[in-house]
Amino acid sequence: MEAGSFAFPIDIARDICPARPLAVLSGPTFAHEVAAGLPTAITLAAADAATAEALAQALARPHFRPYVSTDMIGAEIGGAVKNILAIACGIVDGAGLGLNARAALISRGFAEMTRFGLARGAEAETLAGLAGLGDLVLTCTSSNSRNFTLGQGLGRGAEAAALMADRRTVAEGAFSAPVIAAAARADGIEMPITDAVARLVAGEIRAGEAIQALLSRPLRPEGR
Amino acid sequence: MEAGSFAFPIDIARDICPARPLAVLSGPTFAHEVAAGLPTAITLAAADAATAEALAQALARPHFRPYVSTDMIGAEIGGAVKNILAIACGIVDGAGLGLNARAALISRGFAEMTRFGLARGAEAETLAGLAGLGDLVLTCTSSNSRNFTLGQGLGRGAEAAALMADRRTVAEGAFSAPVIAAAARADGIEMPITDAVARLVAGEIRAGEAIQALLSRPLRPEGR
Repeated sequence: MEAGSFAFPIDIARDICPARPLAVLSGPTFAHEVAAGLPTAITLAAADAATAEALAQALARPHFRPYVSTDMIGAEIGGAVKNILAIACGIVDGAGLGLNARAALISRGFAEMTRFGLARGAEAETLAGLAGLGDLVLTCTSSNSRNFTLGQGLGRGAEAAALMADRRTVAEGAFSAPVIAAAARADGIEMPITDAVARLVAGEIRAGEAIQALLSRPLRPEGR
Repeated sequence: MEAGSFAFPIDIARDICPARPLAVLSGPTFAHEVAAGLPTAITLAAADAATAEALAQALARPHFRPYVSTDMIGAEIGGAVKNILAIACGIVDGAGLGLNARAALISRGFAEMTRFGLARGAEAETLAGLAGLGDLVLTCTSSNSRNFTLGQGLGRGAEAAALMADRRTVAEGAFSAPVIAAAARADGIEMPITDAVARLVAGEIRAGEAIQALLSRPLRPEGR
């Protein structure tokens, strides 16, 4: 998501190439597994169903199955928000908080992703599908993503600036967290996990404080 | 879920103790982590909000946070369906199909759980919450559950009967799969993963056939 404009890649592509048919391909797809021929399912979204269907038929292989959709924004939102939640899951891991906490974080994070997506015009089915929940689960439960590793460092008490300076690869969630937090504020949407990650990455708080703040929120009904 | 009657534990408890207030406590909670004081969040559902709230206040600790709900059926369905999906994730692992396939299975499995839950009167928020999605993620991404281990054996090509005879502990999903598959048929709900697990456990098919059948389903729009 672009800072300031809150545009998604698909919006920018449409501005630059207004006459071209555009599509979004997104889902739980470690590239080395796709290359190895392991079974993979992915969301393929285009503005009209016929384009999506034609592309899906062209790309489908026995072990690579595109599920078509016309919800391009929904297919993009999951990929952006999941990176932030992967940082949060890395923090939980780095701080030694266990698997119960990680599972709770994924389910509360999915609620955040859904609230934000619906406010931005995404469909619930896409957010609960491969590009949303599927990619969220893959990224948050595997310790080899860049975002997760950044979170682990933060969870062990390191400072964000030192970790970011040290890295040769990009942890996308560190850049998208402040942008998505700002977009959510503009929409009037509560995203406490995204907010906490944005403040951690900005060096405003340390992991211990973020964890304390999330644990000491008042008890409330589920789904709010 | 009880075979034949399709009653949930809460229905049976209500029949036996009609005058007692009842509640359901369910969520992503490995007991050894709770005992070790690691942060845990859980759904606490009762028929009326005041009972749920009073119980939550009594049980809450800094590291044990109940989220209250009045959706008792929703809080029970996740715990039943997730065991079946854990067997399916174990099969994917045992057959060496990789993490992309597991993530796709969890997201398609969540769709099955949601369809079934909504048909049985559960609320979408509960199914996407701690007792539904949260517990599903915990059980399906951790290799030490009994259901996951049974699935691993099936995925490696062993026969269900031999695996079940050999086990000293109960893999609940092996018993709930045929019951929930039958309830879904009665409701007119499609649950292809649950069906495949039920047929595998009954010895009607082997894991290789089940995987082939799921991979060769026609391409279709996401969310169906």
